[in-house]
Amino acid sequence: MTIRARPFRSFRTLHAVLALTFVTAASGRSTAAQLTPDQARAWVDTHRWEAVQQLGTLGSFRAVASDPAGLAAARGHLRERLEEHGFDTREMSGGGVPAVFAQKLVGSGRPTVLIYFHYDGQEVDPSRWDSDPFTPTLFAPDGSRIGPVTGLSTTARLDDEARAYGRAIADDRGPISAFLMALDMLADQGAELSFNVKLFLEGDEESSSPGLRSILESPENRSLLEADALAILDAPMFQSDDPTIYLGTRGIVTADLTVYGARGPLHSGHYGNWAVNPAIELSKLVSSMFDPDGRVAVPGYYDDRTPLTDAERAALARLPRVEDELQREFGIPVTYGAGERLFDLLTYPSLNVRGMQAMYVGGQARTVVPADATAALDLRLVPGQDDVAALAKVRRHIEGQGYVVLEGPPTDADRAKGKPLASLVRRPGGYPSFRTPIENEMVQRMMGVVERASGAPPVVLPTIGGSGPLVLFEEVLGLPPFGLATYNHDSNQHSPNENIRLGDYFRAIRIFGVMLATLGGAVS
Amino acid sequence: MTIRARPFRSFRTLHAVLALTFVTAASGRSTAAQLTPDQARAWVDTHRWEAVQQLGTLGSFRAVASDPAGLAAARGHLRERLEEHGFDTREMSGGGVPAVFAQKLVGSGRPTVLIYFHYDGQEVDPSRWDSDPFTPTLFAPDGSRIGPVTGLSTTARLDDEARAYGRAIADDRGPISAFLMALDMLADQGAELSFNVKLFLEGDEESSSPGLRSILESPENRSLLEADALAILDAPMFQSDDPTIYLGTRGIVTADLTVYGARGPLHSGHYGNWAVNPAIELSKLVSSMFDPDGRVAVPGYYDDRTPLTDAERAALARLPRVEDELQREFGIPVTYGAGERLFDLLTYPSLNVRGMQAMYVGGQARTVVPADATAALDLRLVPGQDDVAALAKVRRHIEGQGYVVLEGPPTDADRAKGKPLASLVRRPGGYPSFRTPIENEMVQRMMGVVERASGAPPVVLPTIGGSGPLVLFEEVLGLPPFGLATYNHDSNQHSPNENIRLGDYFRAIRIFGVMLATLGGAVS
Repeated sequence: MTIRARPFRSFRTLHAVLALTFVTAASGRSTAAQLTPDQARAWVDTHRWEAVQQLGTLGSFRAVASDPAGLAAARGHLRERLEEHGFDTREMSGGGVPAVFAQKLVGSGRPTVLIYFHYDGQEVDPSRWDSDPFTPTLFAPDGSRIGPVTGLSTTARLDDEARAYGRAIADDRGPISAFLMALDMLADQGAELSFNVKLFLEGDEESSSPGLRSILESPENRSLLEADALAILDAPMFQSDDPTIYLGTRGIVTADLTVYGARGPLHSGHYGNWAVNPAIELSKLVSSMFDPDGRVAVPGYYDDRTPLTDAERAALARLPRVEDELQREFGIPVTYGAGERLFDLLTYPSLNVRGMQAMYVGGQARTVVPADATAALDLRLVPGQDDVAALAKVRRHIEGQGYVVLEGPPTDADRAKGKPLASLVRRPGGYPSFRTPIENEMVQRMMGVVERASGAPPVVLPTIGGSGPLVLFEEVLGLPPFGLATYNHDSNQHSPNENIRLGDYFRAIRIFGVMLATLGGAVS
Repeated sequence: MTIRARPFRSFRTLHAVLALTFVTAASGRSTAAQLTPDQARAWVDTHRWEAVQQLGTLGSFRAVASDPAGLAAARGHLRERLEEHGFDTREMSGGGVPAVFAQKLVGSGRPTVLIYFHYDGQEVDPSRWDSDPFTPTLFAPDGSRIGPVTGLSTTARLDDEARAYGRAIADDRGPISAFLMALDMLADQGAELSFNVKLFLEGDEESSSPGLRSILESPENRSLLEADALAILDAPMFQSDDPTIYLGTRGIVTADLTVYGARGPLHSGHYGNWAVNPAIELSKLVSSMFDPDGRVAVPGYYDDRTPLTDAERAALARLPRVEDELQREFGIPVTYGAGERLFDLLTYPSLNVRGMQAMYVGGQARTVVPADATAALDLRLVPGQDDVAALAKVRRHIEGQGYVVLEGPPTDADRAKGKPLASLVRRPGGYPSFRTPIENEMVQRMMGVVERASGAPPVVLPTIGGSGPLVLFEEVLGLPPFGLATYNHDSNQHSPNENIRLGDYFRAIRIFGVMLATLGGAVS
């Protein structure tokens, strides 16, 4: 079943009435001019205020997992905005938060690209923010607070270096907002879509996409989602803040490693340095997993990695050198890798201790020998590697340190064995890795789009270090995914004071506009 | 200024009317019989129900730091009960929760012993208890619940192996209750106090005695608290559950050791295994502080320890061998010390990791490189050692691992040094150690009391592993402290399901009765 695009729908922005140009998008017949990069630039320069208002509107939805009403309101706004541009929209549910699907087809002679966004944001702890997370707020280049975005005068100075703060204002509503503005721009300029555009706006990406697989596996959805490629418009740019095309993600599996002492906490005066201390023993175990340069010392951990191609190695070699700047920016005292470059390291699997806990520290601490100590691990894997095999290597390493490795807390019988006791428990979730070849035609076309729209070729990353459910689009639908990242790398994605740099946001509008007008190849 | 004991005050228990014998305690003149160990046994055997009621009454006060009204109610009850026995009572405050002071003087020819208790209890988390912490509840020897203590029929079976559960029911209201019952017993039997009894019932011991020093340093209080010795009736018995005399405590100093990574958590996919991971580095640092047998590997950590005397070594050699049973009882998978005995280890300083934290584990974990990781340390010290020097050794050890060791979080300038960064921050509080010689006359007399009252000599510990403010009595008042521990070692002191074994409680009443009647030496 195919949804037919509805022609002749009017559109508007919420805060500004634009000069309207009606486009008969699905007809193949057009009265429109082409959109050149210069036109895109000129348009964005004269619509900065409207662009920031659109961002403010999206950022004000409390679209986080704990607020279903906020998520529903965001969906409603998105559908309305897309329908104004002639998109057919519907919701797709896999049991979790519904996704919004939208499409506008321009003809069978054109390629079809499925574009991925997500409209939900990470949960917030407002006490750690400098502004209300759901009142998008503008801050000047010098860091001073200008005020809520929605109250800005139309003559307000919107410097490229100013930033808008708010939850999800970058990840991923910055790109969504830029895309909506790009649609406005095409309509305003009378330019046509150059390809069949399908949009998938996920609603629970920040909750690890619990419903995505079942959405993608539904036969009806599969047919709607058919495309030639999947473009993911969600991610921070390379740290040089150049628009970035990335071709893969690492896989991930998470697990909790726990070392056990006595059944309960013991008085440290009466039993300390006699009863085994799980915090000390966990420390030894964690230490044993790494060499002094931070390389993973678990035997075989780097095995089975698919080697990089020549093109991938060449792309890596072209990357701007950002490591020193990054280290300064994040205030990282020292780095691992014995001088190897960050983005080379990211093509290897990693083993990270993402959390560690034994009783309490600080004012809550009590003078006890903790009963257990846990390290939360994440294992990032690369093409060629398998999650089950990777965890098994970690398990064997722990056994090699003399431990009995259980699947959960020990029984009395386990405790009576006179052996060190640990458990390694896999957490729910996780994803495999993927890597789309640089040679993919849509990837090559997108590289051209970015260069034309922004004046410089994109940074190309064979893989990013992160992981995500997008690999399911490849696994279930056979779509080769690639990403185009447009917001600032220092956006505090997932953290307090998330923000987007206005200059990067405005550039994204230009890129998306040129993409819509030219990626399909009719105009180039 | 001296408070004169008031003669001829009537007394009663709350739940039973006893046959009353009036005693002219302060007069030196007496109509009373002596109290033999057999009489004490017979009396306790016929007053078990009353004894358990007294325990239930004390255990029902919500006398914890968070409940000032509960503390005040407990104080009121204690003063009332003591005044019924002719004690003069008053409160002593050092700015924190008031202590109750009480005294009953029998004549200048008798020794004066200051007896220490504390009437406050550790805070509770009721969700982890099998019964309400402030509704003392009886459990049968088989672990089945009998019911609230205060609702027991006078014919209820009160087996030695039954246990009463409740917060502070052992630590320290078990001994207080036993002491009040011993006063009832002496009065009932017409027996006299054999020494000048001064009582100090502290109100904020479980909060680390914030006001104790200023109480002891007040000139008025110093004169009231003058005595020949300090007997501390607060502690669990040696693990063989024989009445235990302990002669010292270890000192304690606590500190938080933090290792620093980036200014904030970093995405583990994008920066993991490149940005230094404080959880991993803290693990290495903690590991470096211990050898495989759990001995402290910080250079010089065992220096300056005053050697044990021959008598102390002999007392240690006589200790029942309880290690295997303890290990089984607590479910400790393995122990440190390369086979050295627990109570020998306790005569050495210890270094304990009492807590450890970096971000989150389990369901709350997020895929980040933590910004910092902290280990909460407690250092237990022995006579001859100094807290400042001990912490300095730990600091030097950390520096020896290549760290810059700060006094708190790093500045940007610290971060730019290109060196591993840690901080070692001493926590407030801490105590020195003490060790009263076995040869002390009051210690020798108390050993005799216990042997006569219980039929076996006490276990004598040159030191316990714990630490506490009682050392201030030695430091400020020059009183040689020693402890007499009477409640079961598995009382879950400070933990959920705190309990006292009734047989141990009844034995404590006998011991305290014989102590009151004979410790002063008039009767022996």
